[in-house]
Amino acid sequence: MRIIKKIFSSSRSTEDGIFFDKLEKLLGFKPNNLNHYRKAFTHRSMNKMDEKGNAISYERLEFLGDAMLGSVIAAHLFNKVPNGDEGYLTKMRSKIVSREHLNELGKDFNLIQFVESKVSPQHFGENVHGNIFEAFIGAIYLDKGFVFCEKFIHKKIIKPYVDIDRLEGKVISYKSLLIEWCQKEKKSFTYEIYDDNGTGSQKFFGVKLHIDNKVIAKARATSKKKAEEIASKRAYFVFQQKIDNNS
Amino acid sequence: MRIIKKIFSSSRSTEDGIFFDKLEKLLGFKPNNLNHYRKAFTHRSMNKMDEKGNAISYERLEFLGDAMLGSVIAAHLFNKVPNGDEGYLTKMRSKIVSREHLNELGKDFNLIQFVESKVSPQHFGENVHGNIFEAFIGAIYLDKGFVFCEKFIHKKIIKPYVDIDRLEGKVISYKSLLIEWCQKEKKSFTYEIYDDNGTGSQKFFGVKLHIDNKVIAKARATSKKKAEEIASKRAYFVFQQKIDNNS
Repeated sequence: MRIIKKIFSSSRSTEDGIFFDKLEKLLGFKPNNLNHYRKAFTHRSMNKMDEKGNAISYERLEFLGDAMLGSVIAAHLFNKVPNGDEGYLTKMRSKIVSREHLNELGKDFNLIQFVESKVSPQHFGENVHGNIFEAFIGAIYLDKGFVFCEKFIHKKIIKPYVDIDRLEGKVISYKSLLIEWCQKEKKSFTYEIYDDNGTGSQKFFGVKLHIDNKVIAKARATSKKKAEEIASKRAYFVFQQKIDNNS
Repeated sequence: MRIIKKIFSSSRSTEDGIFFDKLEKLLGFKPNNLNHYRKAFTHRSMNKMDEKGNAISYERLEFLGDAMLGSVIAAHLFNKVPNGDEGYLTKMRSKIVSREHLNELGKDFNLIQFVESKVSPQHFGENVHGNIFEAFIGAIYLDKGFVFCEKFIHKKIIKPYVDIDRLEGKVISYKSLLIEWCQKEKKSFTYEIYDDNGTGSQKFFGVKLHIDNKVIAKARATSKKKAEEIASKRAYFVFQQKIDNNS
């Protein structure tokens, strides 16, 4: 394995190497075949064709990724909410895979940095982030198969982003839930911005949440508010037992 | 493994044994956990609950099966039609998983024989066959996981039932295609009904297609016409090379 990897590494171009490294960081594993990901980030304005003359763009992969997301989220909801009927499960899945939510995910993953296009990103349309996000999921499925794709969706999407209580409207904001608990328990808390980079639509904020002068959670997102909310949610799960006992 | 199987067999009730055997025949493999399939065939009129008080009926499993079918068919179309764009793929998938088609599949699998209900089948509504069919797919996924479920869908649904040329309207009838070829090639052909059983909506027809006095294909379906069409399609694939060379 090591030898194969070495040969592979040495035959890669520098550009491929950078793409591979960035992808690996995003995926949390080594991609097998970069071509699938290249397709997922190719806008149709590039007019690319494969060796058989079929058009290459992320649009076909969107269809595939949408289907994979749909079935993984369906299985997750089915197991997680054993008393939810068909109508409930359908409604919850629609919320999770809504255009709005997928656009957020695409932005948070900053996938647009990889897109190859002959038109400027301003002309992509507002759903481009969600569309590329779906295509990215499709590429993971082609590259690694269903089981791996499912694991990725669980680790990188369901765990950090999908919160059934919140989707049901039971929890409006984890930040306010956490602040309330800190005040009740007489604990000090601070949200510290430690990272603030990128420009325009690619701007990113990193937030550290300190409770009693200890960093309890960190989060990075496209707005300060969102990063604070994600960090609060992470802290909430750290303290969940305690908070639930106090409420 | 053999010992475990023996213990399992001897501890099964006769009723479970019959259910197990019928399922095995339908699935083409041994089910692990009969409970998933029992749920897939339980109508809500039974008012069954699990040990935690959650209602048991096939409706939740329909949601799961629909999602699994959707993703397996999506991956199949994606691979099979490399020049089909997102709109084409979406349209073809809708045709394959249409209510009408799923109802046909449910009927051909004769799944209604397994349904436990306190209301008579006449009151189930016309989509019951498709609904149980989806629930059945959901049960296979729970029992055996995605990869197995995908194999089942390929072997028992896509291979015998999904025909892209026909869905595209390129082939209207395999029977007429085959007859035309037989006449051109001066081959004799007969459609022989060898099986005609069941009553009412559960009626089944078995058809053998003889070409030059040799049985080339067999098929069983809920109407004589459908069984002839399926047998013709099977024979078509046997002779495909020859037919394509002649047309």
